[in-house]
Amino acid sequence: MAASVRDESTAAPLVDHHCHGLLRENPDPAMFERHLGEGDGPGLHGATPWNAMLGMGLRRWCPPVLDLPAHSEPAEYLHRRVELGADEVNRRFLRASGITRFLVDTGLLPDTITSPAELAALSGERADEVVRLEQVAEEVVRSGTSAERFAEQVEDALAQRLRGAVGVKSIAAYRIGLDFDPRPPSRAAVRAAADTWLHSGGRLAHPAIHRFLLWRAVEWGLPIQFHIGLGDTDLDLHRCDPLLLTEFLRATRSSGTPVVLLHNYPYHRHVGYLAHVFEHVFVDIGLAAHHVGSRAGAVLAETTELAPFGKLLFATDAFGLAELYLLGSTTFLRALDRFLDAGVAENDWTVGDAARIREDITGGTARRLYALD
Amino acid sequence: MAASVRDESTAAPLVDHHCHGLLRENPDPAMFERHLGEGDGPGLHGATPWNAMLGMGLRRWCPPVLDLPAHSEPAEYLHRRVELGADEVNRRFLRASGITRFLVDTGLLPDTITSPAELAALSGERADEVVRLEQVAEEVVRSGTSAERFAEQVEDALAQRLRGAVGVKSIAAYRIGLDFDPRPPSRAAVRAAADTWLHSGGRLAHPAIHRFLLWRAVEWGLPIQFHIGLGDTDLDLHRCDPLLLTEFLRATRSSGTPVVLLHNYPYHRHVGYLAHVFEHVFVDIGLAAHHVGSRAGAVLAETTELAPFGKLLFATDAFGLAELYLLGSTTFLRALDRFLDAGVAENDWTVGDAARIREDITGGTARRLYALD
Amino acid sequence: MAASVRDESTAAPLVDHHCHGLLRENPDPAMFERHLGEGDGPGLHGATPWNAMLGMGLRRWCPPVLDLPAHSEPAEYLHRRVELGADEVNRRFLRASGITRFLVDTGLLPDTITSPAELAALSGERADEVVRLEQVAEEVVRSGTSAERFAEQVEDALAQRLRGAVGVKSIAAYRIGLDFDPRPPSRAAVRAAADTWLHSGGRLAHPAIHRFLLWRAVEWGLPIQFHIGLGDTDLDLHRCDPLLLTEFLRATRSSGTPVVLLHNYPYHRHVGYLAHVFEHVFVDIGLAAHHVGSRAGAVLAETTELAPFGKLLFATDAFGLAELYLLGSTTFLRALDRFLDAGVAENDWTVGDAARIREDITGGTARRLYALD
Repeated sequence: MAASVRDESTAAPLVDHHCHGLLRENPDPAMFERHLGEGDGPGLHGATPWNAMLGMGLRRWCPPVLDLPAHSEPAEYLHRRVELGADEVNRRFLRASGITRFLVDTGLLPDTITSPAELAALSGERADEVVRLEQVAEEVVRSGTSAERFAEQVEDALAQRLRGAVGVKSIAAYRIGLDFDPRPPSRAAVRAAADTWLHSGGRLAHPAIHRFLLWRAVEWGLPIQFHIGLGDTDLDLHRCDPLLLTEFLRATRSSGTPVVLLHNYPYHRHVGYLAHVFEHVFVDIGLAAHHVGSRAGAVLAETTELAPFGKLLFATDAFGLAELYLLGSTTFLRALDRFLDAGVAENDWTVGDAARIREDITGGTARRLYALD
Repeated sequence: MAASVRDESTAAPLVDHHCHGLLRENPDPAMFERHLGEGDGPGLHGATPWNAMLGMGLRRWCPPVLDLPAHSEPAEYLHRRVELGADEVNRRFLRASGITRFLVDTGLLPDTITSPAELAALSGERADEVVRLEQVAEEVVRSGTSAERFAEQVEDALAQRLRGAVGVKSIAAYRIGLDFDPRPPSRAAVRAAADTWLHSGGRLAHPAIHRFLLWRAVEWGLPIQFHIGLGDTDLDLHRCDPLLLTEFLRATRSSGTPVVLLHNYPYHRHVGYLAHVFEHVFVDIGLAAHHVGSRAGAVLAETTELAPFGKLLFATDAFGLAELYLLGSTTFLRALDRFLDAGVAENDWTVGDAARIREDITGGTARRLYALD
Repeated sequence: MAASVRDESTAAPLVDHHCHGLLRENPDPAMFERHLGEGDGPGLHGATPWNAMLGMGLRRWCPPVLDLPAHSEPAEYLHRRVELGADEVNRRFLRASGITRFLVDTGLLPDTITSPAELAALSGERADEVVRLEQVAEEVVRSGTSAERFAEQVEDALAQRLRGAVGVKSIAAYRIGLDFDPRPPSRAAVRAAADTWLHSGGRLAHPAIHRFLLWRAVEWGLPIQFHIGLGDTDLDLHRCDPLLLTEFLRATRSSGTPVVLLHNYPYHRHVGYLAHVFEHVFVDIGLAAHHVGSRAGAVLAETTELAPFGKLLFATDAFGLAELYLLGSTTFLRALDRFLDAGVAENDWTVGDAARIREDITGGTARRLYALD
C-alpha cells in the first residue's frame, strides 16, 4: 500500500491564520442553529441549516467528540452539549481540531466571545491577534473625536493596537463593497468623511475612511486580510468579487505588504488567478470549507488550478461554536490529503513534493507570512 | 451490497414544479433541432445541438421509449417519431418520465403547445397552472386599456387568473435584466410607463411595470418563480446573475412570499448562497439538468454546497418536445441518486437522512411550497 | 478490455489553432520562471510558479523529453536545457507535442521569438499566420500617419497582411475591456481617436479604433480570435468576461464571420453558453489547459456542458518556452481522452460518436473553420 502524504509529512504545527472566539455559554437550540448558517433564522417550510452540508458534517464528525455516535440527531446532540457544559465542549473541540496556533480576528462582537487569551487557555496552545481596522476607527469615534482630530487619533490607536498584532483585517467588502477607489484618500477627504460620519452616527461605511485605514495598513506592513465572497445577508455578494480589488492590488504590489484574501467562495477561482499574477496575494478557503463539507475537495482543487501552492493558507474562520474549529480543520485537511494523495497516485507529483506542499499549506507559509517564529 | 437511497425512499410522487406544454404535432427535423438548443438554428461548419450533451443524452435515453436501440442516429429516430405520431410519442415520454404532478407555466406561446388540461390528459396525472406575470399585463394591453386604467385592470386580471393558480412566474430577467430598482414603483410611475408602452407598442419591457407586477405578486403570496441564468439569445446572461436580486430579496424576506429561482446555470453556486442566507428563497436546476446531461451531478453538487437540501426543487422546464420531460427527470434523478448514494458510501450521511432528502427534493418541498395537497 | 476512443480515432492531424513563437536562446532561470506564470516574478515568501500546477506538470512530462527522469528538480532540468541548447530543446518539444499544423499569432513581441517560418522549420510541420489587429494599427502609427489618413492606411495594411493569413486576433480585452460599444464607429470617431492617439503616443487603447479594426475584420470574413479571460497583470479579469461581448455577438451573428473565443478561464462555462446560442461562436481552453494541469479534465467538462462538441477547438497558446507546446497538447489530449472514454464507459455515447468528436476537436473543426485544406 502506498504511503499517504499525511504520513510522509513531518508533524508540523497546524496554524489557523484566521478565526474568532467562542461563545462562553451553551447557546439555546435556535441560537445554535443561527450560528450554523449565515442566514438569520430557519427557512420557510422547515428548511434548516441542520439539513444542509454543514449540518450533515456536524452530525458526522462532532458527536463522537462528545461521546455520542456519529449522525446523532440534533436534539440528542444539543442535550449532550448542555450536559457537558460549554467549557468542556469548547475544550474538547479545540483540542480535537489539532490546531496549535490561532490567529484571532478580535473585531466581531468581542464582548460576547472568548478573547485570544481565553482561547489559548482553553486549547492549551498559543493565540495571536489580528486587528480589525474598522473596529479601531469605530472605537475612536465611540471614545469621542472630531473631524479634525479623527485621522491622527486613528493613527495613534492603530499604532497602539498593532504593536502586539500579527495582522490586520478589513471588512470593506461588507461595508462599501470592493469596487472602491483604490487610491489613498486625501487628508481633506478623510476629514470630510469623518465629519459626515460623526453627524450621521452608525457604524463605519464611508469609502474615504476605509481607504484611509487600508493605506495606513499598507504602510504598516503587516499582512492585510480582506473579507471576500460569502458572508451573511449584510453583504452584496457580487460586490465582494475579489477581481474588483485588481487596481488596489496593482497599486500595492510593490509595497511589500502581503494581501490575504479570505473565504473567497464562490470566487475561489478568481482569487486563484490573483494569487497567480500578484506576488503579494495569498488566499484561503476558510469558512467555505466547513460550509461545503464533503465538497471541500472540489473547492480546494478549483482554487489551486491557478493559485501557487505557496500562496494557500489554512483557516477555519470559526466563530462562536467550537464545533466549527473541528469541522474547519477536518474538512480542509481531509480534502487536502485526498487531493495530494490522488496526485501521487496519478503521478502528478512525488510524495516528497506533496509532503512539502502539505507542510506549507498547513502552517509553514503562515509562519513565514505572519512572522510567527 | 448496500441498499441505494432510491430503494429506501418511499415511492413519493414526483412533482415537476416548472414546465411547459408540448407541441401537438411532430416537428420537422429543423424545428426539432431548434427545440433541442437555446440557439436559433444550426451552427457554422456543421455544429448541431445533436452533437452536444443534450443530443447525446437524447440518443441514449429516448430511442428505447420508441422501441429503438439506444444511440440510434437522429434520422432514424425522427423517422420513428413520425411513424408513431405526436400523440403517442407525447404520451409515452410523459408516462416514462415518472412525473405525477405538473406545474405548468402557461405564458410562453400558449397557442402552439398543449394546455395544462391537455398535459394532464396525455399523462394521466394532474397539472396545475403557474401564471406568467408579463403575459397578464400584455393581455390587458391587447384587450385595450389606457394609462389611467392600466394598473387597476392588471390587478383585476391577476385576481382572476391567480384564483386557480399555484404560483406566478417573472421573466424580468429576459426583458429588463435583474439589476432593476428593487422597490415598489409609485402609482404615477406605473401610469407613465403604461403610457409609454401604449404609445410604443411591442412587448412588455418597462421596469416600472415589471416591478409593479412583482410587488402585486408579493402581496398576493403565491410563490414567485424567476427566470435566472441561461436562456436563449434574447437575454443578456450577465444581467441574469441572481445576485443582482439581492436587494429585492432583502426587501421581500419578511413578506412570507417565497421566491423560487429557476434554472440558474451557470450561476447555480450563486443561488445556493441566496437559498442559504434568505429564508424565503428556493432553487432548482431545471433546464440546465437536461442540457448538461451526464454533468448534471456536478451541477447539482455545486448547487448544494450552500443551498440547504430543503430549499432545492425538481423541475424539467420541458418545452415543446416530450423527450425533455424524460430527459429532465432522468438526468436529475440519476444525478441525485448518485450524489446521495456516494454520500452514504462516504459516511457523509445515513441512508435514512438521504431518503428524507430525496423525498423532499423530488416532491415533498414542492407540495408544501405550492400547497398542492 | 474496452478499446479507447484514441485507438478508434483515425490518426488525424493535430491543429494548434492559436499559438506563438519560441525563444531562440535558452532563458536564464529567472526568465524561465517568468515564462512559467502570468505574473511578473516570484511571489513573496518563496512562492514560485515551479510550485504550482504548471510547474508540477512540467516536471512530470518534460524531463523525459530531455533524457531526464520525470519529476527532476528545476535546477537539474534547467542545466540539461542549457547542455542541449535551445535549438535542440525546441525541436524535441515541438515534435513530441504531436502538433502537425500551427496557427501562429505573430502580434506579441515578434522580434524576440521565432516566426511562423522558423517554427515550421523547427517542427518539420506547417505554420500559418494569425494577424493581430492591434499590431497592424500600431505599425501604421509607427510608420507615420495622420488622423485623416489613418483609417485608410490601416485598411491598406490589413489588406496586405491578411492576404496570406488564416485568421485575425483581437486583444481588446487587454486594452479596453470587453464592455465596449458593440457598434461600428463612425469615420469621424475613428479620425478623432486617431488624432488623440497620435498626440498622446503609447500603445493602442482607444475604443473607437479597436471597434474599427473589429468591424473591418468582420467584413473581411476570416475567423476573429478574441483574447478572453486569464492573462497577465495588464488586464482586468472581470472586464474580460466573454458575456460582455453579447451585444457584439448579436450584431455579427448574421455576418458569416466566425468569432473564436480563446483561453476563457475562469469564464469557460460562459463561453460554453455563447457557443451554444450563437451559431458563429467557437471556443477553446488553450493556455488554461497547461496552467491547470491535471485539472484540465474538469475545465474541459465544464466547457462542454453547453458548448456543442463541434464548436470546441484545440490550442496551446504556447509562448516562448517549447515545453508549453508539449504541455498544452498533453494536458488537453489526456483530459479529452479521459472525458470521452468515461462517457463510453458510462454509455453516454458510443465509441464511434466519441471518435468523431475527438477528430473534430483535435483538428477537423479547425481545418474547416480556417479553411486549411
